[in-house]
Amino acid sequence: MTNNNIPNIVALAGGVGGAKLAYGLYKTVPADKLTLIINTGDDFEHLGLHISPDLDTVMYTLAELANPQTGWGVQDESWGLMQAMRRYGGPDWFDLGDQDLATHLLRTEWLRAGQSLNEVTAELCDRLSIGCTVLPMSNQPVRTLVDTSEGILPFQEYFVKRRSEPMVTGLTFAGAEQAEPLPSAVSTIQQADLIIVCPSNPLLSIDPILAVPTMRALLMEANCPKVGVSPIVGGAAIKGPAAKMMAELGLEVSPVGVARHLRDVLTGWVIDTIDADYTAELVSMGLTVQVTNTIMRTNEDKIRLTKEILDEYPAFER
Amino acid sequence: MTNNNIPNIVALAGGVGGAKLAYGLYKTVPADKLTLIINTGDDFEHLGLHISPDLDTVMYTLAELANPQTGWGVQDESWGLMQAMRRYGGPDWFDLGDQDLATHLLRTEWLRAGQSLNEVTAELCDRLSIGCTVLPMSNQPVRTLVDTSEGILPFQEYFVKRRSEPMVTGLTFAGAEQAEPLPSAVSTIQQADLIIVCPSNPLLSIDPILAVPTMRALLMEANCPKVGVSPIVGGAAIKGPAAKMMAELGLEVSPVGVARHLRDVLTGWVIDTIDADYTAELVSMGLTVQVTNTIMRTNEDKIRLTKEILDEYPAFER
Repeated sequence: MTNNNIPNIVALAGGVGGAKLAYGLYKTVPADKLTLIINTGDDFEHLGLHISPDLDTVMYTLAELANPQTGWGVQDESWGLMQAMRRYGGPDWFDLGDQDLATHLLRTEWLRAGQSLNEVTAELCDRLSIGCTVLPMSNQPVRTLVDTSEGILPFQEYFVKRRSEPMVTGLTFAGAEQAEPLPSAVSTIQQADLIIVCPSNPLLSIDPILAVPTMRALLMEANCPKVGVSPIVGGAAIKGPAAKMMAELGLEVSPVGVARHLRDVLTGWVIDTIDADYTAELVSMGLTVQVTNTIMRTNEDKIRLTKEILDEYPAFER
Repeated sequence: MTNNNIPNIVALAGGVGGAKLAYGLYKTVPADKLTLIINTGDDFEHLGLHISPDLDTVMYTLAELANPQTGWGVQDESWGLMQAMRRYGGPDWFDLGDQDLATHLLRTEWLRAGQSLNEVTAELCDRLSIGCTVLPMSNQPVRTLVDTSEGILPFQEYFVKRRSEPMVTGLTFAGAEQAEPLPSAVSTIQQADLIIVCPSNPLLSIDPILAVPTMRALLMEANCPKVGVSPIVGGAAIKGPAAKMMAELGLEVSPVGVARHLRDVLTGWVIDTIDADYTAELVSMGLTVQVTNTIMRTNEDKIRLTKEILDEYPAFER
């Protein structure tokens, strides 16, 4: 099924926040017109398993399997593994749900058999009947390292084991220089009619994608609207450590601060009504600004926000 | 804690049946006097995990974690992983319980880090507070292959995937020639005051142990009582395919058939009262015969049978 009159959309996303808008897009545009490029800087090896938290969150969300309370993990999850792991006194700092484990086991098995992360992701999505294209930002490993007041921590140790408590002094995306974007991501970006930067943590979810060589230039060169949704609303992050990290790194914790940080790859910026006062400043930065309710609590919210964004662009008039 | 006046016991065991008598021994003799040597011919790799079914069954049984209905696996188990695996259309022919998975993940991780199977087993037993010594029959991989009417099948494919249905024409213990017994198993057998052959499948559980080079000779040379309990009672196996396989391989399906098969490494044989008629024939084979109720349904049964066996040997008079 191709719809040649319907524009191609590329969206960049990380975990929970990004997955919400990705869900809205998935439910709004034809699946064959939608490509999601997902952060893999949070990936890590744990108990011999290759875990890709952001890919999993997006997959589970699109497949309507995600836990609605947490936004990550699988709904109606059981925790037998963790119970037994604690009995053994084994590592229990990273929650591995029993259903979730099937994803990790299959991914790890297929990677070990020589498949690329992209092939594995496509196969998992296919088996969950996810129709759109979900691409890891690279097949090569990129690992986010957090420079903190307590030293350099691998991302999951900072985020999960240390609950984002240490003060952040910098971020490194180890391996990024040797990573390559997927050829299909390159061609899809080049043919995109609209690029969406989902409301993910700019430092932890979007920056690693932009750190993959050529990706930032590709996005800058893309001759189409490039619209982001601010993950900072009312001076705080909807979820996660974005606001705390931005402050620690000297960035303004506001829609303006995020827009400045991502300015290279944006032409438009969607902010919440609570932040309407920032409109003039954002416009003065050359951005097309849209002000609306950006909080996505329900699936209806996700779809409504998506439609409001698309309606701003003539190509998407319905 | 050593009790130098108390005899050393070595028991050979496989899975469910063997684990029952192993439990009886564990509850009856001082832990530091008991060494269990466990079949690893059933071990296999599945979804990247190293699974040792017989070691697990023995560990779970001794730790009072075993599922009392099945005899294998963990009690109060959950099955979230299998549910998700079926959602993916992934391999679901081998039941992996959620709690059980902690064992497989830790074992696999530690083996990959360079520990031997014996070291891993000791660590797992230690963490489950199992006081006696549980030894794999070898640190080297030995894999039972079943020659069948449908070709050669790896053991778990024969046993689980094909439910022991194909007719068996032979058994091979691949890797056995390159395997070595553990040095601690050798010295413990040489110092044993009593050797017990638990009521495990003689072809699938005891033969692989005897196939490890020097193991059969060591047991033959051991100058102590060597007592087995018949796994065949009333012409049938208590559990599993022992009777069917024995018949297919032309062995007499009776306590005599098993005793003949294991004659090299036995001085005594314990049979069920229902099989009392075989006593004369077994005695004529030179075996010391004990007739009692050998069916172990409850933990009390396991301990009673153990005590009855030990009471036959003056060293164990209490």
